[in-house]
Amino acid sequence: MKNNKPQETTGPGAPASGRRAFLARGAAVSAAAVASAKLIPAAQASEANLPPNVPAWMKTQGGGFLNPPYGLPSPFEKNVVRKLPATVAAFPTATRTPLQNLFGTITPNGLFFERHHAGVPVINPDEHRLMVHGLVERPLLLTMNDLMRYPSFTRIYFLECSGNSAAEWNKPTGKTAQDVHGLLSCSEWTGVPLSTILDEVGVKPEGKWLLAEGADAAAMTRSIPLEIAMKDALLVYAQNGERLRPEQGYPLRLLLPGIEGNMSIKWLRRLKIGNQPFYTREETSKYTDLMPDGKAREFTFEMDVKSVITTPSGGQTLREKGLYEISGIAWSGRGKIRSVDVSVDGGRNWREAVLQGAIQSKAVTRFCLPWRWNGEPAILQSRAIDETGAVQPTRQQLIAARGTKSFYHYNGIQSWKVATSGEITNVHA
Amino acid sequence: MKNNKPQETTGPGAPASGRRAFLARGAAVSAAAVASAKLIPAAQASEANLPPNVPAWMKTQGGGFLNPPYGLPSPFEKNVVRKLPATVAAFPTATRTPLQNLFGTITPNGLFFERHHAGVPVINPDEHRLMVHGLVERPLLLTMNDLMRYPSFTRIYFLECSGNSAAEWNKPTGKTAQDVHGLLSCSEWTGVPLSTILDEVGVKPEGKWLLAEGADAAAMTRSIPLEIAMKDALLVYAQNGERLRPEQGYPLRLLLPGIEGNMSIKWLRRLKIGNQPFYTREETSKYTDLMPDGKAREFTFEMDVKSVITTPSGGQTLREKGLYEISGIAWSGRGKIRSVDVSVDGGRNWREAVLQGAIQSKAVTRFCLPWRWNGEPAILQSRAIDETGAVQPTRQQLIAARGTKSFYHYNGIQSWKVATSGEITNVHA
Repeated sequence: MKNNKPQETTGPGAPASGRRAFLARGAAVSAAAVASAKLIPAAQASEANLPPNVPAWMKTQGGGFLNPPYGLPSPFEKNVVRKLPATVAAFPTATRTPLQNLFGTITPNGLFFERHHAGVPVINPDEHRLMVHGLVERPLLLTMNDLMRYPSFTRIYFLECSGNSAAEWNKPTGKTAQDVHGLLSCSEWTGVPLSTILDEVGVKPEGKWLLAEGADAAAMTRSIPLEIAMKDALLVYAQNGERLRPEQGYPLRLLLPGIEGNMSIKWLRRLKIGNQPFYTREETSKYTDLMPDGKAREFTFEMDVKSVITTPSGGQTLREKGLYEISGIAWSGRGKIRSVDVSVDGGRNWREAVLQGAIQSKAVTRFCLPWRWNGEPAILQSRAIDETGAVQPTRQQLIAARGTKSFYHYNGIQSWKVATSGEITNVHA
Repeated sequence: MKNNKPQETTGPGAPASGRRAFLARGAAVSAAAVASAKLIPAAQASEANLPPNVPAWMKTQGGGFLNPPYGLPSPFEKNVVRKLPATVAAFPTATRTPLQNLFGTITPNGLFFERHHAGVPVINPDEHRLMVHGLVERPLLLTMNDLMRYPSFTRIYFLECSGNSAAEWNKPTGKTAQDVHGLLSCSEWTGVPLSTILDEVGVKPEGKWLLAEGADAAAMTRSIPLEIAMKDALLVYAQNGERLRPEQGYPLRLLLPGIEGNMSIKWLRRLKIGNQPFYTREETSKYTDLMPDGKAREFTFEMDVKSVITTPSGGQTLREKGLYEISGIAWSGRGKIRSVDVSVDGGRNWREAVLQGAIQSKAVTRFCLPWRWNGEPAILQSRAIDETGAVQPTRQQLIAARGTKSFYHYNGIQSWKVATSGEITNVHA
């Protein structure tokens, strides 16, 4: 079974079929397969002699309601937070998602990675406007109320900073999945298709590029080809069901599915249609890829196919030999994930992982594979393949093609080394 | 076009096809279709004369990072919170999700509805145990670490309290979608298939029912038929990517997709396999449906097909005539939503809505339909149909079948009345 096909992902028997796929891979679950699980002698397994004993929290009424009315995680999860990179710049500009502590595919809004160029503006939505002008028939100025009356569109998409994993071009400096790959998150987004608004204003035949401008103090601007704007771009006002968070562009952001994150302009206030790229500061001083011959690739929009094992991963420790689940996430800016292979021996042998849930284009896909650790050293790797047939490269393959002067668009295979002690570290295998 | 078929929901052109579906319904978007949108004379639409003026928040650097490291909504959204019902019992037992303020299908964890029987216990996950015993070959005691090593399963499912919308059996007392239907939310859940653990312990042939017990001070217990437990039930430890919130059962809950919410036992500590229902307090004093003849329906597990328009909805006001989007959510405990019809004249005429995204079994589906309000009184209704062919009944049809002595399992069609003033109220049409 290659993956959970759509007809298997819903309705009766779905988990069971996932389980069968698991069993079919030869790592059968047997009684107390997880070694530390405690078998209880049947004679003792009665209510009268009930392990565990009745805990303290069953003896008194629990805590109150509406405290807080907007809920927060358990105090026992207080270390599951966004964090700054290990080497903080004078002016920190990004926080990272704790991928190694997350499950499934959705990133909670409170943990969605941040990247700002001049901090987070506090914008009153009633005072915010979107201006659409330039090479158009009918320039338009929209309030948030205006915009939210247009037909909406909801879809799950990932967002990744083009600088994600950048340290891996050089040395394996980050310890955890968060450190190394945490500029990647995934949400359900709701907004108005940009094509609807471009139809409203009537783009003139000579209009070929858009300038998108943010209402932050950096007035962050990028140039966007009209074909990307008309394809699947959204003017987004909601994320994971609620209005955008301030650090994600409240009250309005652009979202370009599959495209490097900095182009999904936050706090969007202006779209200008022109006949050529605008070559803003962000397109000359930054966001190009320097090649070995000294030339730079520019307008490298799509985020290529990529994956990372999140459990077990760097900074975690396996406490004993036995059954574990290898689990991770895969994504591609070019469409759906077709398959993910997993190696536990540094890429010599590969097994195909099970893909979870409804596999959606330009969204994170969760993959899983059971693994029985024998206590010997191991190198865990994942290799994603997308629906265009693109295969995630090894680090060596990526460097052979691009050199080592690039900063953006690193998508090499990640290697996690499991030591005999069970400790897991980030290595270049 | 009936809905966005799977091949249309992803990849290039998806929003455009949604837009075409919208246009095909005859409510074409034309220049300044939203009346209040401001057309800008082209001569003024230059950067030199830029409306809006540069706002204050572009003139100073924005706020800081990691403040807080676990993010929160904008202060301008401070009223989008869970709330207690209008008529609060002496001991409040539930808070409701602000459906009228939400978008898409995912409910953020901070806004997911709550229902407790003895408050929220604060549980140390290292001290929590799950005992599985009774008519089994190998009784088992599991720590959270043990459980989380088994193969996981991730899927999006709704959860609805069987008492949701209960006031509608009598009078339309609630004002908003939150008041009336807010005991309904939807998440991505991750956990271990219950069938995996039941296979581990080896259910004896005479085992037919499970008792599930929570570790709250109520020791909340319900009886579950083995066939439901083996079908698609999950032992859940994560919700929307992160560990369960305390009020959702941290560190472990049962999740029975499509089944009335109270059976998805939170703070799960014990599963006992027996040969008949256990007839716990919750199955005798509560959670049955009293029929007109004085008999009660018991073990009414599945939540039937249902829908509600969330925008525009009760408590909101339309400010002017013109183009609006009618948007709402539909769900069924019996499978996928097949279609949703919308009426603006109290059920005399119906139009089929557009369904958004990947339609998943036992999950919330978002529906949308453009509507041009002419300023006259209107009654907005939605009618969902699921893949089994079940049609959401009118309130009259539901009462004809069940009488008015029931409290649980209300799934009648909701009517929102739009007055000439634009004010919207909850009515029984």
